[in-house]
Amino acid sequence: MRWNEIDTQVCSVARALSVVGDRWTLLILRDCFTGVRRFDAMQKSLGITRHRLSDRLVRLVDSGVLNKVPYQERPLRHEYRLSEMGKELYPVVLSLAHWGDKWLDDGDGAPIQHVHNNCGHVVRSVLACSECGEALEPRAVTPQVGPGIMRKHERGEMGEQDAERLPPFVKGPVA
Amino acid sequence: MRWNEIDTQVCSVARALSVVGDRWTLLILRDCFTGVRRFDAMQKSLGITRHRLSDRLVRLVDSGVLNKVPYQERPLRHEYRLSEMGKELYPVVLSLAHWGDKWLDDGDGAPIQHVHNNCGHVVRSVLACSECGEALEPRAVTPQVGPGIMRKHERGEMGEQDAERLPPFVKGPVA
Repeated sequence: MRWNEIDTQVCSVARALSVVGDRWTLLILRDCFTGVRRFDAMQKSLGITRHRLSDRLVRLVDSGVLNKVPYQERPLRHEYRLSEMGKELYPVVLSLAHWGDKWLDDGDGAPIQHVHNNCGHVVRSVLACSECGEALEPRAVTPQVGPGIMRKHERGEMGEQDAERLPPFVKGPVA
Repeated sequence: MRWNEIDTQVCSVARALSVVGDRWTLLILRDCFTGVRRFDAMQKSLGITRHRLSDRLVRLVDSGVLNKVPYQERPLRHEYRLSEMGKELYPVVLSLAHWGDKWLDDGDGAPIQHVHNNCGHVVRSVLACSECGEALEPRAVTPQVGPGIMRKHERGEMGEQDAERLPPFVKGPVA
């Protein structure tokens, strides 16, 4: 698929979605974050077929998001634990949850609340700048061409056709 | 689909994914955040069929994430702009981008960087607590039953079967 080849090279979002851009996958990760680690428990929680769950788990292990770890010897049984890579998807999962709570509320309020142990409050998550700590608003953030595109360009790996498919803000600096 | 009925009522993540749990949908939103607003420009940027793009845009407008706004009278032409609801998906999109940059790097570094205009630095995003400002780590956050589940329970809308499908941490307080 032509699109896929180009886009996962030049766009961080597309690249991330090539691993987690599937509803079941994100629901499996949600379960992992709430301590559901075993196949049968996931199947029950998700109401998903064994075949589909197995398929998604294999992909998540192959891509390094989950580790498959034995928890019993005879018979051998495994459970699925978030790797460091998987744990760092927490901002994605929690942001999705809080967005749903705010905008898709059916009038009853959040089904699940999140308490921050360190301060004791029911919290919402805020996306903050790693450098100054201020909340990051879309208007205050400027995307610019990064090393990933520049290096491919310098090596002559970015054809004219590829450049045409880049978002408008990228075109200037590369051309 | 039984799962869908239950889960979107009792889980904020599932509810959010019922609107944005599709790779194309998230890529369209990524485009919107970089200023791509028109059908033809999106089609070119995404390499998606007109039919599929049209389908996703109708859903995003129906769910309130995008507004369809005329930009030309004769002939009548529309563009798609993020609503307030849509803009608040920024943490999801930016978190996905930064996760991809860190974990799916092909050795060339981030294709696109994000500069925070207010402090002038190339930034990463950090998920912070709305109450104390500290970075939110999964281990420091405790999920608990919120008003959404409690009210449904009080009105007798949570059957035994439903309760069985809730994540383990939810069972205690409701049962």
